Amino acid sequence: MRYELYYWPQIQGRGEFIRLALEEAGADYVDAARAKGGMDKMMRLLKGGARPPFAPPFLKAGKLLLAQTAMILFYLGGRHGLAPRDEAGRLWVHQCQLTLLDFLVEIHDTHHPIAGGLYYKDQKPEALRRAAEFHASRLPKYLGYFENLLTKHPRGGLAGAKLCYADLSLFQVAEGLAYAFPQAMAGRTSQYPRLHALRDRVAARPRIKAYLASTRRIRFNEQGIFRHYPELDG
Amino acid sequence: MRYELYYWPQIQGRGEFIRLALEEAGADYVDAARAKGGMDKMMRLLKGGARPPFAPPFLKAGKLLLAQTAMILFYLGGRHGLAPRDEAGRLWVHQCQLTLLDFLVEIHDTHHPIAGGLYYKDQKPEALRRAAEFHASRLPKYLGYFENLLTKHPRGGLAGAKLCYADLSLFQVAEGLAYAFPQAMAGRTSQYPRLHALRDRVAARPRIKAYLASTRRIRFNEQGIFRHYPELDG
Repeated sequence: MRYELYYWPQIQGRGEFIRLALEEAGADYVDAARAKGGMDKMMRLLKGGARPPFAPPFLKAGKLLLAQTAMILFYLGGRHGLAPRDEAGRLWVHQCQLTLLDFLVEIHDTHHPIAGGLYYKDQKPEALRRAAEFHASRLPKYLGYFENLLTKHPRGGLAGAKLCYADLSLFQVAEGLAYAFPQAMAGRTSQYPRLHALRDRVAARPRIKAYLASTRRIRFNEQGIFRHYPELDG
Repeated sequence: MRYELYYWPQIQGRGEFIRLALEEAGADYVDAARAKGGMDKMMRLLKGGARPPFAPPFLKAGKLLLAQTAMILFYLGGRHGLAPRDEAGRLWVHQCQLTLLDFLVEIHDTHHPIAGGLYYKDQKPEALRRAAEFHASRLPKYLGYFENLLTKHPRGGLAGAKLCYADLSLFQVAEGLAYAFPQAMAGRTSQYPRLHALRDRVAARPRIKAYLASTRRIRFNEQGIFRHYPELDG
């Protein structure tokens, strides 16, 4: 079965968490909205059908049309060996993923605290304030939580010795934070050694390494979730 | 098995979505943090263990300790007949729930656009602006989406004729919006007839009706997610 992934073609965004899982799995997929006519198809799928998604990303998997990043990964993880087989382990990885995506909203809102529909420049004073609070409180809380989880499996990931999709997502968040907040993150390197080690291990995996070097990997940019605005780099 | 639900004892918050499911299911549960010594136990569970939650709510179900509202509901829904049995239906209800919880973050952030750790009064100018954008754009987008889903099963809910846990959550969101934004919601009643009908149907279910009239149901208040600040009522 060839999966069809639908996501905004110019950004990594939430689609990237799914791309990383598909790539690591060596799954057969097409990044459908980046193909010719793909945007039209994506907009049609958003509008019609019995069970329409609220927003991209969504994944066509045979007859299933699945939305919500964490749910798509839950589905893929079970099918491609990127999650434990036992119920407790499967739920745990899903729980980690949901927490990571909560973190992602807070990362996004550092530059868009008022409305996603407004430009950054139109909410800059509010963004400066939100970003300062983020660096003082939320960033250390979330990173401290994940660092603590990684100490339980020093050479593995969130679910144990074997890589899971939430490890790939944690890699992506670490990459994104390093892009968006290079100064703040450089100052914290020593606080999160396990996170940095995981990031290096994921980046070195053959399929991920090949993917990151390919044109399939969209670069970080200032339309995405992780944006580098020096004035927000706490 | 007696479930133990852990959540901040003074507010409905995210815990309420789980309470509604447990009540509708007639499940055996204790609202653990509201019992004597419960807060201490909650704080201990948050700090220790191999798979600690990031934040409340979380549910102790035998040996499992489950966090993340949507995941707890996914687990309970399958065990108590509050979700379809087929994979596609089960995933669909989970997807609806995740979208509802995305909406919930945006509802919360109308009064806390800068930081959850600051008081409302310390972020009021930003809240006024965020709430205005919310009423103009996000509220109609989310409600229109769910209203459209309900037209597919006019006398049922999000998953068809049979009630599912996401219907209970949609009820709670409708109740909360009516509490927080009475003026804005009154002005929109005619736009969302299916949503109002669902709200009435859920409120009339015997177990839910009994629960809502009991002291187990915490009242809406200005420490919760849905807060009534007249100046934010678009």
